[in-house]
Amino acid sequence: MINFASGLPDPRAIPVSDLREILIEVIEEYGYKALQYAPTRGLPEFIKVLTRFVHKTRGLKALPEDILITTGSQQALELITRLFVNPGEIVIVEEPSYILALNVFKLRNANIIGIAIDENGLRVDILEDTLKKLRREGKRVKLIYTMPLHQNPSGISMSLDRRRYLLELAEEHDFLIIEDDAYALLGFDDLLTPALASEDRFGRVLYLSTLSKTLAPGLRVGYLIAHEDVIMKLAAIKQACDLGTSTLSQAIGAKAIEKSVIDKNVERIKRLYKIKMDLMIEAIDEFFPKHIWRSSPGGGFYVWVKLNRDIDTEEVLKLSSKCGVLFTPGKRFCVNQDLCRDAMRLSFSNPSEDSIKIGIQILGDILHSNVKTPCY
Amino acid sequence: MINFASGLPDPRAIPVSDLREILIEVIEEYGYKALQYAPTRGLPEFIKVLTRFVHKTRGLKALPEDILITTGSQQALELITRLFVNPGEIVIVEEPSYILALNVFKLRNANIIGIAIDENGLRVDILEDTLKKLRREGKRVKLIYTMPLHQNPSGISMSLDRRRYLLELAEEHDFLIIEDDAYALLGFDDLLTPALASEDRFGRVLYLSTLSKTLAPGLRVGYLIAHEDVIMKLAAIKQACDLGTSTLSQAIGAKAIEKSVIDKNVERIKRLYKIKMDLMIEAIDEFFPKHIWRSSPGGGFYVWVKLNRDIDTEEVLKLSSKCGVLFTPGKRFCVNQDLCRDAMRLSFSNPSEDSIKIGIQILGDILHSNVKTPCY
Repeated sequence: MINFASGLPDPRAIPVSDLREILIEVIEEYGYKALQYAPTRGLPEFIKVLTRFVHKTRGLKALPEDILITTGSQQALELITRLFVNPGEIVIVEEPSYILALNVFKLRNANIIGIAIDENGLRVDILEDTLKKLRREGKRVKLIYTMPLHQNPSGISMSLDRRRYLLELAEEHDFLIIEDDAYALLGFDDLLTPALASEDRFGRVLYLSTLSKTLAPGLRVGYLIAHEDVIMKLAAIKQACDLGTSTLSQAIGAKAIEKSVIDKNVERIKRLYKIKMDLMIEAIDEFFPKHIWRSSPGGGFYVWVKLNRDIDTEEVLKLSSKCGVLFTPGKRFCVNQDLCRDAMRLSFSNPSEDSIKIGIQILGDILHSNVKTPCY
Repeated sequence: MINFASGLPDPRAIPVSDLREILIEVIEEYGYKALQYAPTRGLPEFIKVLTRFVHKTRGLKALPEDILITTGSQQALELITRLFVNPGEIVIVEEPSYILALNVFKLRNANIIGIAIDENGLRVDILEDTLKKLRREGKRVKLIYTMPLHQNPSGISMSLDRRRYLLELAEEHDFLIIEDDAYALLGFDDLLTPALASEDRFGRVLYLSTLSKTLAPGLRVGYLIAHEDVIMKLAAIKQACDLGTSTLSQAIGAKAIEKSVIDKNVERIKRLYKIKMDLMIEAIDEFFPKHIWRSSPGGGFYVWVKLNRDIDTEEVLKLSSKCGVLFTPGKRFCVNQDLCRDAMRLSFSNPSEDSIKIGIQILGDILHSNVKTPCY
């Protein structure tokens, strides 16, 4: 199987031998404390180094009280939704958006509205029109979920003026912004755009990120930065949900930051993923039909392809999976599924370099023969 | 501070050097796979050894498909509640019951009804009367939460006939039973009562347990056993909640079972906790007023004391904390708070042997002088 469907990191992106060393140091240094309950808000040693880390890497000024450690950033998203969104209330997402964010909002029975993105990210003009229309109807948007950098599933980043405009709209229309910053450090150039939250003068942004893409997803460690009052409320819900995130994982995260293992790993894996993305887009440009559109990701794990024809990519998947090639059909990322019917998310993070070219070629063949090619 | 309030294991109960060895073996054997995402349902290697472990230790016959690995058993409780209890629906708990179970039900806005326990556990006669009354009123109980062995906070276990009667009532009145088996292996005698779920002919019991008391709470690993259909639904909610439990923690759990580290640890710490409980109850019998009632725990971490007088133990706590002694006032464990106003939960798990006697003596002094003693 050539798997362009999953968002699993490349096995080589996980610094196993560094982590082996860290594990031994953690047990030596923390002893039983690495294996005991930690406060629900998080292991104090981890929170402390995180404040420095997010300042250095994302331009964020956070006090320890502003941080909640979560079981992956997925949990942060779920906790925020439970606190701020009541069933039936309006949540806005980018179209397309992260599938498991949509799942969280659906589980909460939120009223989900999708706003299109283009090459410069969220169409804030359409957003503004929608907000005005909703206001006229007496409806209120509770929150907007966005991934401003190297978005999942498109790989697109929001332009700086749109980011600023989004912050202004949040203040004017009184909504919160969830900034999911999971792929921020995996930008292929060395320009580091600060977090949207670092420009937030109004206290509208709830910032979340994770160690899953930069260190190891199996640790299940994410973090949420917001005002202390919000963090306290979220921690109370988290306590009922899981008492706290793995203490061992948090101690590992603390050591990995202290020893600059994450910094070094990020420099290494950015190059790895850039090579894989280049292979993928070259292959797409070579093997896919000419009238398609694809994104040009500046980072992250994913390329988004629009086939620009009347076709449901769920059907393409049925064929390609018979030939051993998986991807994720566009509809799954969209509220207005028709708009994404002919789209596909192609993940280059996990498959090997060799298999990327072969897999794209197989997909190209299927697309060229009008989706009827049997597996060859 | 002498802390009889927390349910933290004794630091000596965490087998740090065994776990250090296991960590190294895990990295050698699993490599990056111990640090990659695992399936939301759980790491297959862990689920496999768990089926054998619960069969051997708890008499449970579970297939791998019947198991969901959770982030502590706390998460299992929360997921079950979200799946089965809608806001306003009735949940029955033991009176007193585990505080963070009450919190889960409150967070769900359930209608919580408490049923008294006595030395033989849940008063199934009162339960039956309540069920009949509710039925007459056209109301239905969705589920009952019970800790049949070495209950938190009382240390009491349910008698075998009451267990059987509870199972029959569940069938007759069509409700589910959550069996929280967290302290089951920490019984002070060597009689091992099988899990309630092992006697469940009707598929009414959702079984949950944890590695927190037998291995290490900081791993945040629990597990839930139920019918495969239920597990699939719960896994879908869990995916939105945290994607999955720490892969590393699960791999450690698998190794700890395979290498009999848990078995050996349980034998060792049962003796440790028995010594501490004996110290505590001897001190209570020596220093507390004679008219009080205390439980005689057969295992677990806690002694429950009823002062049998008109006093709010929240007031006792205010005084005792000034003298450096903490415990948890009874009201916090109860729905009908008045019934537990004069009660206290005293945890012997975490404080040192020396401090147990001193702490109980201080509490005794405070109680003797009609709760007016200043700290001496």
